[in-house]
Amino acid sequence: MELPQILQAVVDNFKKIPGIGEKTALRHALFLTNWDGIDLSSFGESLEKMGSLRKCLECGIFCDEDICKLCSSPSRSEIKTICVVESIADFMAIEKGGGYFGLFHVLGGTLNPLMGIGPSELNLESLVERVKAKKIENIILALNPSVEGDATCAYIKNILPNGANVERIGFGIPIGGSLEYLDSLTITKAIENRRPL
Amino acid sequence: MELPQILQAVVDNFKKIPGIGEKTALRHALFLTNWDGIDLSSFGESLEKMGSLRKCLECGIFCDEDICKLCSSPSRSEIKTICVVESIADFMAIEKGGGYFGLFHVLGGTLNPLMGIGPSELNLESLVERVKAKKIENIILALNPSVEGDATCAYIKNILPNGANVERIGFGIPIGGSLEYLDSLTITKAIENRRPL
Repeated sequence: MELPQILQAVVDNFKKIPGIGEKTALRHALFLTNWDGIDLSSFGESLEKMGSLRKCLECGIFCDEDICKLCSSPSRSEIKTICVVESIADFMAIEKGGGYFGLFHVLGGTLNPLMGIGPSELNLESLVERVKAKKIENIILALNPSVEGDATCAYIKNILPNGANVERIGFGIPIGGSLEYLDSLTITKAIENRRPL
Repeated sequence: MELPQILQAVVDNFKKIPGIGEKTALRHALFLTNWDGIDLSSFGESLEKMGSLRKCLECGIFCDEDICKLCSSPSRSEIKTICVVESIADFMAIEKGGGYFGLFHVLGGTLNPLMGIGPSELNLESLVERVKAKKIENIILALNPSVEGDATCAYIKNILPNGANVERIGFGIPIGGSLEYLDSLTITKAIENRRPL
């Protein structure tokens, strides 16, 4: 069945978001047809404004000024530690965890030659510059465990100055997880990563 | 953690859509931050345009003119049958099924006194007018099986002219369903609705 053009345009836009398929997009669009013009405009405008969302020139996290609150915080800079993450979503997850108090650096992805993402597509140069300029001593690589994540970690280790303490976050059994239901790769990693009690 | 205002506005708007919670809204919004300004504007504009979406003056289905293609189709009018549905989504489901070729009428909801939806909030008057004006002989009530759906069906039966053939769609076991896993109310209904073989 053919949808009116106006509705089809909204459906097509929703479909571009990962996790939203044809049916969900149509359901969302049909729900929005019940909204009045003011609410629709406000939703539309909020999306348009997102084009002007600014990112911190140092770490790449969203902020309203040139440099974000984290980067300009003296207490965070004192720790001389940078945590490297793939995306702002990953940064948020760590920040929500509340167990890390140092600086961050958002790469904007991982090395993925098949998708055309090489070193120049990621914020790698600025990471090296920051490490040198701020005399960072510890670099924590909080990249996801995947082929691309592993390759990116190896690459970063190589381009960082010798003597920098580069570490990767621990792999193993998640808290609340159960050996019985975990995949064998995670279990192998957990046994490798055992620590004295 | 506090989000930038621009991002928070998008998250808040996504959250108003049923089925999208705090986390999903944030995930969608973060994905959209990767879009360029042109795509964001096009998404925003598509939503704003939805305020001008027109509905058929007769049946309530989306259309680009005053009267939709279904209502102006002579072959559909000939059948003298109207199928009454709650929403345009329900109309689409029936139309996609491809087993019904008559006219439609979108109520825009069901009677729900607790939510403040009385007869005047629904397209009930126009239904009675259409039935009289077009000399409709059969009215199929394709409302969902719920307390509100049942009440609305009873109400419609009452306000329609005497002699009109008012029917409700069949309840029973869905095709591909299994007695073992169905709820007892559906099974009771299915036994009530048995037909000679």
